[in-house]
Amino acid sequence: MKVDGDLARQVIRPRLRESHKGSYGRVLLIGGLYPYGGAIIMAAIACVNSGAGLVTVATDRDNITALHAHLPEAMAFDFGERDRLLDNLRAANVVLIGSGLGESDAARQVLDLVLANIRPDQNLVVDGSALNLLAKKNKKDLPDCHLTLTPHQKEWERLSGFRIPEQTVSNTQKALGEFQAGTILVAKSHKTAVYQGEKVAHLEVGGPYQATGGMGDTLAGMITGFLAQFASIDRYKAVTVATWLHSAIADDLAKNAYVVLPTHISKAIPSWMKKLSI
Amino acid sequence: MKVDGDLARQVIRPRLRESHKGSYGRVLLIGGLYPYGGAIIMAAIACVNSGAGLVTVATDRDNITALHAHLPEAMAFDFGERDRLLDNLRAANVVLIGSGLGESDAARQVLDLVLANIRPDQNLVVDGSALNLLAKKNKKDLPDCHLTLTPHQKEWERLSGFRIPEQTVSNTQKALGEFQAGTILVAKSHKTAVYQGEKVAHLEVGGPYQATGGMGDTLAGMITGFLAQFASIDRYKAVTVATWLHSAIADDLAKNAYVVLPTHISKAIPSWMKKLSI
Amino acid sequence: MKVDGDLARQVIRPRLRESHKGSYGRVLLIGGLYPYGGAIIMAAIACVNSGAGLVTVATDRDNITALHAHLPEAMAFDFGERDRLLDNLRAANVVLIGSGLGESDAARQVLDLVLANIRPDQNLVVDGSALNLLAKKNKKDLPDCHLTLTPHQKEWERLSGFRIPEQTVSNTQKALGEFQAGTILVAKSHKTAVYQGEKVAHLEVGGPYQATGGMGDTLAGMITGFLAQFASIDRYKAVTVATWLHSAIADDLAKNAYVVLPTHISKAIPSWMKKLSI
Amino acid sequence: MKVDGDLARQVIRPRLRESHKGSYGRVLLIGGLYPYGGAIIMAAIACVNSGAGLVTVATDRDNITALHAHLPEAMAFDFGERDRLLDNLRAANVVLIGSGLGESDAARQVLDLVLANIRPDQNLVVDGSALNLLAKKNKKDLPDCHLTLTPHQKEWERLSGFRIPEQTVSNTQKALGEFQAGTILVAKSHKTAVYQGEKVAHLEVGGPYQATGGMGDTLAGMITGFLAQFASIDRYKAVTVATWLHSAIADDLAKNAYVVLPTHISKAIPSWMKKLSI
Repeated sequence: MKVDGDLARQVIRPRLRESHKGSYGRVLLIGGLYPYGGAIIMAAIACVNSGAGLVTVATDRDNITALHAHLPEAMAFDFGERDRLLDNLRAANVVLIGSGLGESDAARQVLDLVLANIRPDQNLVVDGSALNLLAKKNKKDLPDCHLTLTPHQKEWERLSGFRIPEQTVSNTQKALGEFQAGTILVAKSHKTAVYQGEKVAHLEVGGPYQATGGMGDTLAGMITGFLAQFASIDRYKAVTVATWLHSAIADDLAKNAYVVLPTHISKAIPSWMKKLSI
Repeated sequence: MKVDGDLARQVIRPRLRESHKGSYGRVLLIGGLYPYGGAIIMAAIACVNSGAGLVTVATDRDNITALHAHLPEAMAFDFGERDRLLDNLRAANVVLIGSGLGESDAARQVLDLVLANIRPDQNLVVDGSALNLLAKKNKKDLPDCHLTLTPHQKEWERLSGFRIPEQTVSNTQKALGEFQAGTILVAKSHKTAVYQGEKVAHLEVGGPYQATGGMGDTLAGMITGFLAQFASIDRYKAVTVATWLHSAIADDLAKNAYVVLPTHISKAIPSWMKKLSI
Repeated sequence: MKVDGDLARQVIRPRLRESHKGSYGRVLLIGGLYPYGGAIIMAAIACVNSGAGLVTVATDRDNITALHAHLPEAMAFDFGERDRLLDNLRAANVVLIGSGLGESDAARQVLDLVLANIRPDQNLVVDGSALNLLAKKNKKDLPDCHLTLTPHQKEWERLSGFRIPEQTVSNTQKALGEFQAGTILVAKSHKTAVYQGEKVAHLEVGGPYQATGGMGDTLAGMITGFLAQFASIDRYKAVTVATWLHSAIADDLAKNAYVVLPTHISKAIPSWMKKLSI
Repeated sequence: MKVDGDLARQVIRPRLRESHKGSYGRVLLIGGLYPYGGAIIMAAIACVNSGAGLVTVATDRDNITALHAHLPEAMAFDFGERDRLLDNLRAANVVLIGSGLGESDAARQVLDLVLANIRPDQNLVVDGSALNLLAKKNKKDLPDCHLTLTPHQKEWERLSGFRIPEQTVSNTQKALGEFQAGTILVAKSHKTAVYQGEKVAHLEVGGPYQATGGMGDTLAGMITGFLAQFASIDRYKAVTVATWLHSAIADDLAKNAYVVLPTHISKAIPSWMKKLSI
């Protein structure tokens, strides 16, 4: 599958006039635990700018003010409120867990709660430290749902057992095969590829100006936003296009920037999606 | 009534030189209770940018820092301070309640306090979850005041008893007739209309790029700002023009944005009002 | 005295190469007590953008995060820390008190502490609610210092005893005469004038687009910044030019804005001062 | 050594395609203790915009929300958490201490902890009040590491024993000789110079529009970012170019600004570095 603006145009279709915010999905983002509060803020900024209908963030209570200073558009609650978390989990079309989650006991508990309650019809995007926690689990025990994994090479090493030099396409496909059928893998590196079953899409965008903290959180937020909004589109295409767009925007910004800040990518999403939709 | 720039020009008149901030109204905005703090922030940003003279926000104490990070122009206090709330209620020309209010006991109590103390000469705008709380009350018990309701279709279903497919003009007018005479209804949908008594104005602006969280809070803030500032103008015209302007700005921003963020609309209000005033 | 760009050019001179931040004054801003936190934030933003060398804010502890979210350039401490307040008071060239101070017991106490400790060589700018507190004091008891008062008409009524229709030039000069010699009065209205002894400067800038909350706080911050930075210039000229610039910028912004936000004025100060300095 | 764009181009090389955020260094910034929270925020903004790979801030817990409101890209923790501080210290390539640190007991303790644990292979940048604390120590007791000092004239007086009029090149080199070999000195004044051993580079950029609070914190953040990112480049060149770039950007912004705000310099860093890298 060639990944370019043409593929993006297949996903980013003009919106139907008779729609409302519920038409574009309900998202629950879980992460940003101390001392990593900024990560889920960046994911949320990306997700809202990608066009998700309703975005709710479960994070440290102390992190809510900074989130709202950036993004009053998102609702936010204390991730430790178990009942509220379960309510939001039930209502969500797409759940992202992991951006700035850390690996504390609290992080493990909230991940376990999500894994125990996610439904087969729901999307679950696992990012960042949640991938390290997942690596310690038996893949057979993972719940049945639409799973997307977004590891960088070191996280994929922990998940797949393949060290970085061994992360060839065939080894990666083999390791991905241990997850349930349909699982999507966004294998992040200087040559990012997106996998599902036998499919693999190599991206020809992106560059070293993206090598800065928060870049992955922003990508995770975009993927989540695309899955929420383009629910009627093939999931693999939606994830691939979100990943492509993230780096295509970075390439453009890098014409005038030595390092591209994650939040600058997010601000550019609506105008790029507009251009691709017409 | 045709709703367009010409109608807007009738409302948005050049300001008189001999005026001061008190000339443009005192507004009290009530909402933004945990976990919905962002909603009242968006309403306040819209209200200040619409030109209200003095804007005060009653919200969760924890929400004040995020509000001030966006908008030092607004005063803000803990909604639980009963005496301060009553003082501000007395001083206000226009009160907005509901954006991010939720339906907790605390939310119910503050709504009841407002309904028990509002005066016939004051404007009350009821938005969001406060509409759901209102739906549980007997309409005969509502206080005498200048009332404006801003429900989306599901909220109007609860208020009117008419399910969404039944929300025709005549049914809507019939249901509106159960509220006191003069009540204005902003019936939000993909074809928003503004009602008062026998009058109905159908808007021909707006689009699905507005289908994102916070859009309604921003509209409620604009309506409140217009009622405060244009107190000598026919209320129905003022509300209709505020509603029109909200979507007219969105249409313009959507030329370069797949999804239009509520706060982006607010930033564009002063320049649009200027253009319409000359 | 004609107040225009030519006068401004006499005050806003190119800076000397051999200078450092201490050359441009130390400022202490006191105010922003709950529920008026935003006021001192706006004063501080204006003061830093006006070019004051070092700006420190004494405010409610809960207000510091919102201040720093706008302006990391300012230091900030809890106004209730008496020793720190006295240390900062001693070190300051210019003290502003009143923007968002309120009239609580705590407000009264901090005003009294300032009045008891200000020195004859220091500038004291009194704004907002501190003017109301001052109105209750015997003018004979006010300390010897370089005093600037920035009342709007209602505040001047309380201070002068003259009701608004009676606030003629001669009555205003008479009332100003009861303050110590050299006291500067910025009499804010839709035709603002600046007084000192027999001198009066009528401003021909400004308009009703400035009639919004926070406009006065921003002016107070600019006046404070000018007094700090242009310490070798005649104080009356410096205050007059700061007041003129505040409205001259508003006039310019109002070409594209129905209402001019206070923080938008502040952002434009450095470029205006640059243009006037060459 | 002539310090200009040509030297900058030797340092700011195009990034290698096969790299990741770890390739650009791990930074630990320590400071921003009450009431100086803004200082470390400005250092962090500068550091991230300079291209450091991963930036972590140790500061007052109360300062984290304001930091994240500016910069979700940085991680942040309570500087009083000794174990976490030691973990982050161990992982860092470059440590900055001093911006807004103050001279309290807590400040002294955290400085001592850093001095006791820094390794010979690590860079330590000492700025602001940490320089005053250092001045009270015996230079023989300072640890072996790659040290950079960034004093202004008064701080250098305390460190060197030379009063400001005595701070000639030869006296400065003599005083610098008392520190371990290789120590870099950024001697800030209206004619800033950078020293290492016998080398001295006089900068011909910068001006009095930089005489405002936070300018030094921003410079410290840039130097830290350059040391982290350009680890394979001669340290003296990297520090000199960071210092040059800081003022070169200020000179450019000053064409349209009477006073240049520190955060405005930081925003311009990525585009300047891009231009210098091609």
